[in-house]
Amino acid sequence: MASRILGRLPLDEDRLAQDMARLAQAPAPQEPYEVFTIGRWVNLNLWNASGDDGDGFFNGHRQVAGRPTRLLGGVPYIGELLTTWFNTELLTMVRARNVVEWSIVPHRDFLESGPAEDFFRVLVFLEDNEHALNSDEDMVFHMRKGEVWFLDSAQIHAGVNISSRSRWSLCLDFKAGAGFSPGDVFARAGDYDPAIRPALVERAPAPADLPDRLRALSAVVSRHNIKDIAFLLGKVHFTEEVPIGASWDWLVEITRASGDPALLDLAERARRFFVHSREVYEEFSFVPA
Amino acid sequence: MASRILGRLPLDEDRLAQDMARLAQAPAPQEPYEVFTIGRWVNLNLWNASGDDGDGFFNGHRQVAGRPTRLLGGVPYIGELLTTWFNTELLTMVRARNVVEWSIVPHRDFLESGPAEDFFRVLVFLEDNEHALNSDEDMVFHMRKGEVWFLDSAQIHAGVNISSRSRWSLCLDFKAGAGFSPGDVFARAGDYDPAIRPALVERAPAPADLPDRLRALSAVVSRHNIKDIAFLLGKVHFTEEVPIGASWDWLVEITRASGDPALLDLAERARRFFVHSREVYEEFSFVPA
Repeated sequence: MASRILGRLPLDEDRLAQDMARLAQAPAPQEPYEVFTIGRWVNLNLWNASGDDGDGFFNGHRQVAGRPTRLLGGVPYIGELLTTWFNTELLTMVRARNVVEWSIVPHRDFLESGPAEDFFRVLVFLEDNEHALNSDEDMVFHMRKGEVWFLDSAQIHAGVNISSRSRWSLCLDFKAGAGFSPGDVFARAGDYDPAIRPALVERAPAPADLPDRLRALSAVVSRHNIKDIAFLLGKVHFTEEVPIGASWDWLVEITRASGDPALLDLAERARRFFVHSREVYEEFSFVPA
Repeated sequence: MASRILGRLPLDEDRLAQDMARLAQAPAPQEPYEVFTIGRWVNLNLWNASGDDGDGFFNGHRQVAGRPTRLLGGVPYIGELLTTWFNTELLTMVRARNVVEWSIVPHRDFLESGPAEDFFRVLVFLEDNEHALNSDEDMVFHMRKGEVWFLDSAQIHAGVNISSRSRWSLCLDFKAGAGFSPGDVFARAGDYDPAIRPALVERAPAPADLPDRLRALSAVVSRHNIKDIAFLLGKVHFTEEVPIGASWDWLVEITRASGDPALLDLAERARRFFVHSREVYEEFSFVPA
């Protein structure tokens, strides 16, 4: 099941603007998933297992019921949207997220948490930004304001906002598993509307010499820039028709061509961590502490 | 006057560890100078013009006297270091700073603030991290724990911590100007000790084909990755003997060779903003909002 639209929220512009102004002023808590991203990546914890707004850990491996944090009290309209529109019985986590001059590398979620069918991740965008795109193994798409999206995070997926303009969204995690169906995320079954067509993004056919062009990076790659290069490669599929997972293979090829076995090892470990296998609490970094 | 050591603080490990644990838990406020950096760049405002710990703006253009923020009360040892060691009459701003998997591009400070001789920026490192380096037009250096450094930010300078290990420092700004001498930053004149030798970093001679290697990036550069490439180029001088300012010239050459006039224009505007001229409140971004 690829990422797709589940429904659409009508949004009260004035009340939303008040809440978003509060979110924009909130200090950013510690971020456990920073390694997946580059650029500004702020997650404000509105609902989670501990009720502590400083706790950004996704407890998928133990599926703990969620509850509101103190921060949710400061954004009453968003709180109302959650309780009116969504099935809070199944809701384990809600993060209000902003991304600016940011990308998240092609990766799979839940590798460390358990069977992917136990989890159901939903995104609701609170503002439009044409510079912000998402992708999965099938397509590149633009999530519009108010749309409720299922993000198939068990597929390889990525995201970007190349601009300096904000891109606020809500990321909702639901407990799924046996007997779950996508309409269950809503409080009212009638709000499930899978017929809305997504805004897909056309890409250019990849030039035939793209792999050669990219291999030129083997003359430049070093431990000082391998992270920059990994993220640069991870964005190519947003504009050119190449498989989303190719970026990690390119990084492996580039580091192999560099002749430095330490860089090749790092690239292979990165590919494993981001798209193949990962343990709970496992950490990765391009330059270990 | 290049960057240089002004003295050294003996640090009480236990008391410092307590304060640093508090800093590590503090949420990050809004960051006005994010565009200069990539990676985690946290500035906690301990002393500034407004006394508000959410205010990270450097008020150099009006040289307002500084005062403690609420946050300083939570780190009593650091507060004591400031008042015992430094001349708080001249102290306009203090930021406790952490950088992780981070770099700051080659840039000049104070371009927007007024004559460089009116400002005197001092860094005190609170922990050692061999993966963290600083640089100016003359050299690459490693600032060791406890050292009090004058950072000549009117020169082109840069910094990096390629590792995932923290790198906490204090950044102190003093009002300088006519009659100011570097020893004036200390509360006790005898603490000025300009004879301490810095830990300089040896670099490899630049390979003759370096400009050609880098020009290969013209086949890859796009508006999606020009920021990544600018930061990648900005780190080359840390390991190879090339002038620190060359990275912006390379970016201009690479974008010119790409054949895309919009990218060339962006590179030229970036070079102007980061190293040549900038207005107070002027903002720059690789992709405008």
